[in-house]
Amino acid sequence: MEYRIEKDTMGEVQVPSDKLWGAQTERSRNNFKIGAPASMPLEVVYGFAYLKKAAAFTNCELGVLPIEKRDLIAQVCEEILEGKHDDQFPLVIWQTGSGTQSNMNVNEVIANRAHQIAGNVVGKGEKTIQPNDDVNKSQSSNDTFPTGMHIAAYKKIVENTIPSVSQLRDTLKKKSEEFKDVVKIGRTHLMDATPLTLGQEFSGYVSQLNHGLKALENTLPHLSELALGGSAVGTGLNTPKGYAKRVSEFIARFTDLPFVTAENKFEALAAHDAMVETHGALKQLAVSLNKIANDIRLMASGPRSGIGELIIPANEPGSSIMPGKVNPTQCEAITMVCAQVMGNDVAIAVGGMQGHYELNVFKPMMIANLLQSAQLIGDACASFNEHCASGIEPNLPRINELVNNSLMLVTALNTKIGYYKAAEIANTAHQNGTTLREEAVNLGYVTPEEYDEWVKPENMVGTLK
Amino acid sequence: MEYRIEKDTMGEVQVPSDKLWGAQTERSRNNFKIGAPASMPLEVVYGFAYLKKAAAFTNCELGVLPIEKRDLIAQVCEEILEGKHDDQFPLVIWQTGSGTQSNMNVNEVIANRAHQIAGNVVGKGEKTIQPNDDVNKSQSSNDTFPTGMHIAAYKKIVENTIPSVSQLRDTLKKKSEEFKDVVKIGRTHLMDATPLTLGQEFSGYVSQLNHGLKALENTLPHLSELALGGSAVGTGLNTPKGYAKRVSEFIARFTDLPFVTAENKFEALAAHDAMVETHGALKQLAVSLNKIANDIRLMASGPRSGIGELIIPANEPGSSIMPGKVNPTQCEAITMVCAQVMGNDVAIAVGGMQGHYELNVFKPMMIANLLQSAQLIGDACASFNEHCASGIEPNLPRINELVNNSLMLVTALNTKIGYYKAAEIANTAHQNGTTLREEAVNLGYVTPEEYDEWVKPENMVGTLK
Amino acid sequence: MEYRIEKDTMGEVQVPSDKLWGAQTERSRNNFKIGAPASMPLEVVYGFAYLKKAAAFTNCELGVLPIEKRDLIAQVCEEILEGKHDDQFPLVIWQTGSGTQSNMNVNEVIANRAHQIAGNVVGKGEKTIQPNDDVNKSQSSNDTFPTGMHIAAYKKIVENTIPSVSQLRDTLKKKSEEFKDVVKIGRTHLMDATPLTLGQEFSGYVSQLNHGLKALENTLPHLSELALGGSAVGTGLNTPKGYAKRVSEFIARFTDLPFVTAENKFEALAAHDAMVETHGALKQLAVSLNKIANDIRLMASGPRSGIGELIIPANEPGSSIMPGKVNPTQCEAITMVCAQVMGNDVAIAVGGMQGHYELNVFKPMMIANLLQSAQLIGDACASFNEHCASGIEPNLPRINELVNNSLMLVTALNTKIGYYKAAEIANTAHQNGTTLREEAVNLGYVTPEEYDEWVKPENMVGTLK
Amino acid sequence: MEYRIEKDTMGEVQVPSDKLWGAQTERSRNNFKIGAPASMPLEVVYGFAYLKKAAAFTNCELGVLPIEKRDLIAQVCEEILEGKHDDQFPLVIWQTGSGTQSNMNVNEVIANRAHQIAGNVVGKGEKTIQPNDDVNKSQSSNDTFPTGMHIAAYKKIVENTIPSVSQLRDTLKKKSEEFKDVVKIGRTHLMDATPLTLGQEFSGYVSQLNHGLKALENTLPHLSELALGGSAVGTGLNTPKGYAKRVSEFIARFTDLPFVTAENKFEALAAHDAMVETHGALKQLAVSLNKIANDIRLMASGPRSGIGELIIPANEPGSSIMPGKVNPTQCEAITMVCAQVMGNDVAIAVGGMQGHYELNVFKPMMIANLLQSAQLIGDACASFNEHCASGIEPNLPRINELVNNSLMLVTALNTKIGYYKAAEIANTAHQNGTTLREEAVNLGYVTPEEYDEWVKPENMVGTLK
Repeated sequence: MEYRIEKDTMGEVQVPSDKLWGAQTERSRNNFKIGAPASMPLEVVYGFAYLKKAAAFTNCELGVLPIEKRDLIAQVCEEILEGKHDDQFPLVIWQTGSGTQSNMNVNEVIANRAHQIAGNVVGKGEKTIQPNDDVNKSQSSNDTFPTGMHIAAYKKIVENTIPSVSQLRDTLKKKSEEFKDVVKIGRTHLMDATPLTLGQEFSGYVSQLNHGLKALENTLPHLSELALGGSAVGTGLNTPKGYAKRVSEFIARFTDLPFVTAENKFEALAAHDAMVETHGALKQLAVSLNKIANDIRLMASGPRSGIGELIIPANEPGSSIMPGKVNPTQCEAITMVCAQVMGNDVAIAVGGMQGHYELNVFKPMMIANLLQSAQLIGDACASFNEHCASGIEPNLPRINELVNNSLMLVTALNTKIGYYKAAEIANTAHQNGTTLREEAVNLGYVTPEEYDEWVKPENMVGTLK
Repeated sequence: MEYRIEKDTMGEVQVPSDKLWGAQTERSRNNFKIGAPASMPLEVVYGFAYLKKAAAFTNCELGVLPIEKRDLIAQVCEEILEGKHDDQFPLVIWQTGSGTQSNMNVNEVIANRAHQIAGNVVGKGEKTIQPNDDVNKSQSSNDTFPTGMHIAAYKKIVENTIPSVSQLRDTLKKKSEEFKDVVKIGRTHLMDATPLTLGQEFSGYVSQLNHGLKALENTLPHLSELALGGSAVGTGLNTPKGYAKRVSEFIARFTDLPFVTAENKFEALAAHDAMVETHGALKQLAVSLNKIANDIRLMASGPRSGIGELIIPANEPGSSIMPGKVNPTQCEAITMVCAQVMGNDVAIAVGGMQGHYELNVFKPMMIANLLQSAQLIGDACASFNEHCASGIEPNLPRINELVNNSLMLVTALNTKIGYYKAAEIANTAHQNGTTLREEAVNLGYVTPEEYDEWVKPENMVGTLK
Repeated sequence: MEYRIEKDTMGEVQVPSDKLWGAQTERSRNNFKIGAPASMPLEVVYGFAYLKKAAAFTNCELGVLPIEKRDLIAQVCEEILEGKHDDQFPLVIWQTGSGTQSNMNVNEVIANRAHQIAGNVVGKGEKTIQPNDDVNKSQSSNDTFPTGMHIAAYKKIVENTIPSVSQLRDTLKKKSEEFKDVVKIGRTHLMDATPLTLGQEFSGYVSQLNHGLKALENTLPHLSELALGGSAVGTGLNTPKGYAKRVSEFIARFTDLPFVTAENKFEALAAHDAMVETHGALKQLAVSLNKIANDIRLMASGPRSGIGELIIPANEPGSSIMPGKVNPTQCEAITMVCAQVMGNDVAIAVGGMQGHYELNVFKPMMIANLLQSAQLIGDACASFNEHCASGIEPNLPRINELVNNSLMLVTALNTKIGYYKAAEIANTAHQNGTTLREEAVNLGYVTPEEYDEWVKPENMVGTLK
Repeated sequence: MEYRIEKDTMGEVQVPSDKLWGAQTERSRNNFKIGAPASMPLEVVYGFAYLKKAAAFTNCELGVLPIEKRDLIAQVCEEILEGKHDDQFPLVIWQTGSGTQSNMNVNEVIANRAHQIAGNVVGKGEKTIQPNDDVNKSQSSNDTFPTGMHIAAYKKIVENTIPSVSQLRDTLKKKSEEFKDVVKIGRTHLMDATPLTLGQEFSGYVSQLNHGLKALENTLPHLSELALGGSAVGTGLNTPKGYAKRVSEFIARFTDLPFVTAENKFEALAAHDAMVETHGALKQLAVSLNKIANDIRLMASGPRSGIGELIIPANEPGSSIMPGKVNPTQCEAITMVCAQVMGNDVAIAVGGMQGHYELNVFKPMMIANLLQSAQLIGDACASFNEHCASGIEPNLPRINELVNNSLMLVTALNTKIGYYKAAEIANTAHQNGTTLREEAVNLGYVTPEEYDEWVKPENMVGTLK
């Protein structure tokens, strides 16, 4: 491999010639060989691209950066956002906890690429724009990294998580309506209980996701607050007057999202409760999705020796010799995601609770976990929606068999023949392994016609939706 | 001990003569000897008292319960709420996961106590009101227990947690204002950084708690939804028309809190995402409080070999021979609470994710954890506020010593003598262990007067609050 | 209430006259009103009683405490261990994180009670023995509290947890042997799979608990290490020569457990990884128990519309009108316990990771969670064993119906008629909702006699135990 | 892109021409677009390579696979282990929870690559060896995937985690010995306490890691148990006699690790408590490492306004103008890793507790988390060791200043001049902000010579190591 020399305040460093990064990035690569390379999420890099561009515009507007430099910086940021430099960000999550080295990685790549755009060769001549003095102007790692975190998280939530969860919610709602007349046995404590409709059962899932989406949306205002302008410790030292507010406006404009400058910059650097808050809502969604997927796979279990009330799509070969063995693989994928999200929630909280003084130094770990959860929930909901939920059908014969065979229906006779005779019927059927109808008639308490008229599961499912 | 005989559908049971509970409570006591007796939180019992009274009023209004029975039930419920029967609820958290046995405990106590009030002897004669037919009318364990959970949780949050956290927030805000001119060294990565004011530092804590309170309040609407009226599986079977809405109105009236009937009863029985949601906000507060308490004890550390910037109240003897060894015991108590809340969050989520079909059977565990967290955060904030936060004072000589001795102040000279000379001053002072002022003058770059005029930490703390 | 005056280095305090505790305990009561009073586990107090007695014996033997004082201290310690003074320990978990105040509570109670035993009136005259100088001689809170933690934890594990888990394991093993010939359908992905015996299924549970017990026992050596002798920071300052080793021998003798002096006292004060380690094994057991209890309730589900392969004991009334609705309440209790243990594991780890320098100050929280988990797992296993596991019976007709009705048995025909014909049989049966036998004969591939001879589930369960 | 047609029992699928995988892999790619592609850890693939080769050898030895097929399979497995086919495993963690699709991925790649090796073109002609009939012979996803999990986990632990943690432990031990005479102030509750040596302090860290390594090694026997031979449900159906034991012997031989066949195959498929157990030990190490790294960064804090007792290596530029601002970046990286491991522990336990019947379907998620934790702890320890621990030096002037300035040393005078005079000296020094020596002499209680002789911190650090 060929190398060129890059310098920082500690001296010279060899950097692969074909790479745009500089000395500090290279040092970090060598000093932090922890886990897979380049694990720092690209979403954070893109968050940086938005904020670097916004900072350049603000600095220019406030008179501290020439328009030529602004435009060079902006052009590279746009290239980054187009994914043209994805291989220029080799650093890992497990670096300095402020993310300083990723901030420098972005600064260095922008400076070197700008040098190229300006017609120069990287590593030759004085840099057209300086990573620190120009790209990082009016900034500090301490306020840029959390800003990048918020941009990345907010975008992921609104572009992936919320749409995918909503789509699944819509499918379940549609199913709930389709199944509104499918009367089935209810189950509490896993034991047979009074009937309800399959539509009602699904409406509970819809309600869970609605509440979860609401909870997630409630966290967005905190996430919309940006640290930028706080500078190194939150005081805004070395930032021009009006900078914090203005830079947030630019970020809002460039991302088309309602970002605002954080009310309190000291919190914004020293704590990441917004991450904790948003992930709390993701965890709530995971709890809901686990319940839903679990129910569906239980109801789809069989084909002969399980519950068998639902038919789910067969997406891959099950047992070749075993027709009907449709494994609930989408349920399995999404419940694994739920378990992961439960774990990520703890990682984030553990990081969040350990800030010291003016800086929390668990930043890269926190955002990486949040982005993973947001992505996984979104993707898993999309996959579950497409490959499972939208194809769910009731197994009507089985549903009818189970509800009609149930002893719980005897409660419908209470008001007709009294509690004690009804109980006697149920008891006899339970002992003989027969149906209620059979024993009700055998015992002479009702005629077959009366039974069929009085014992109608569909009359027991209430008026509640 | 003397016993009387109580009966249920399984037969006779001996119950201590001086106790008001009945057969099912006694069975549960014997079948679930797990952990300390009577661990089911009294707050849940009180929640039941509200809902039993509300159910009696609703049943009466809707024509299915005579007014005499309503009044007897209501009277006992009031006695329970006055704490007169606290020793009548011996059951544990670790019972049936629907809390059925605690529902029956309440039903039995109300029925037996009503029998007494009606002038009879418990265990003698036919019960004046029946635990199942009267007290539990139009109800099921499956909708009463979650209703009791929501009432208990909501009350605890608004009566203990929020006021106590708010009070601490107010104290910290007051301190933030008092300390607004106390310029001190900032610290990032635990290392010296540019200065800020102690007031600014505290303003970050205030902002954290404000965001936490907001997050907690955001969860209250979900918590205000009551399951009552859902009956056994959510369909409302065997409840009179209009019951669900009306009974929630009575509960709202009796508690003076904005309870409403849950939009979807199937969710309300089968999932407890509201618990997960509310506890998520409690966990966020724990994360914040841990950071705050940690900072305070670090800044109060010493007296000679620590940071020593803050003076906290001495509430108990430290070392008898060691003046100034004031252990940050309130910080320790509250950070232990934070760790507990972190754990409780996992317990609640694990319970929440495992519901099956129409019923989640982790109810008692979930509410017990939520109530513990809400109480502990509330109590710990009140204690921390009274015995620590409100007495915090800056150790001004030490704060001044540290900020003035710091090398970070050299940045103030950049614009006066240029970056390189400033760096040389800092470097020399670092090597010699001297002050910036000393070396700046020695090196001949500034006069003492210039130094004092140019290097003013108070000019470096920005205009950001 | 009447009071007497007690003093400490901060001055006078009013203490209820009928209480044996002194000034520091009373201060702590007032300064830490967090959660329920007296939440500090009594097991920790008993751990202190052992160590205070052992310290008195060691101090006496090493010539720094007169024999009369030793005997007075020992006598009160024995009274404490007999439970005679349980109401003298009013402090909460949420106090100073070193547990200093509980150490002083014990010291004060011993001193005052010794004064009584010596024929004096508490609060009158000079104390016969001094809480600090005599009872706490050669000790510090910093080494006594962790010693009390280890004694309490070790005893709980070996006296409650291990015996109860072992008992449940034995019952499941017995069931596994009883059920060794009960051939049933296997289920993977919740879907029908090839058969196994119920005994084999239960043998998996036995193996889980065996591994869990082994894991728990592996943690005991770390737990057997005692901090005592480390004194305030681990150096053993102010302890007589030979003290640490000797005091551990006395504790081992008094408890009849293999305690030893910790190899490294600095770790023993500053970190509580032994708590983390032991609780890790408790969590593993919780994971196992959750799986086991979940399986059992799924297999016992029904009576008509579930799996119905197992019959579990009916311990309390289910639905009065619904025969066979035996709720798996013991499964519910134990799975709630498992969720709690999962949460406690996080609380303990969060506390364990946050020690500072020479002292971890999350001690009371850590031991309280460990004791709760150890107790709950022990109690829940005992309860589950007595009220559920030991009464589990197979529902043979149902088991046979499900296995014989299964399509998976067709694999037994592969070697007789070839894969393709076998698959055709299965497919036809699946489509027609018929049995394999029916279609195998209909399709003319086998005679009924051949079918019965070739398709024997009992030949498909292997030789693996 | 060019495609070829591959088939499975569901029909035809288009597969990229340059890829060796087949129909089922391709289906999984399309059905599970969740998170980053190819997230299934390669270590699991390698585990499969070992077991596929071992199965081929065993099948051949037991007479059910021709030697030519054995050798073809073995050759491809070796190529896989050499990393030649890393890009042939595109599947994600979030697939079916049994890992069936990754098992098929391996089977398909082996079959197609064997076809090539045999001189054929992939996709042309009948496959030389069949993915199911040959490569997967005597196997099921249900026993291969957990076998691959155990191989991958065991190798990672013994090849990465244990060596790296041991190396760090050795460095800390070396430092502990180097620093054995460096007397410094002790700190409890973050407050000044009696002195100890820096060597003693580090010895506590060594002891923590020793206990952690022991705990980790204790879990290896469980991890050494292999599921292979259990087949679909644990009965070993369709495996030749002697297979389970023999295949484990081959795996042990090929990996040179002490693998054995699992005592109970039902557990080995249905539960993954071994993962829970091993990760419990990793979590314990994380707890220890967090404490250690935290202490080190606190002691290295400064340069002027922190504790400043340690000097850590400067690996990257800190503030350019701020000499001595050496950020504890390695401490930050490792504590972020610790937080991640805390989260992973919950994810694994949540997956482990949710197995159903004969199969746990959280397998890929569990192993991915375990491998991540094992790798991160190993890598982070190696990085921390190289870039931080091995370069730690005491800042002797600062250490001496803090210990000599401390008021705690007054305890050394107790035995010389009595407790009360000693306390008076300390109190005066505290009030005047002076040294003990100064006031001791001023008050006339000791001469300067006496003070220097009597007050020697090095005499207060005990004989305990």
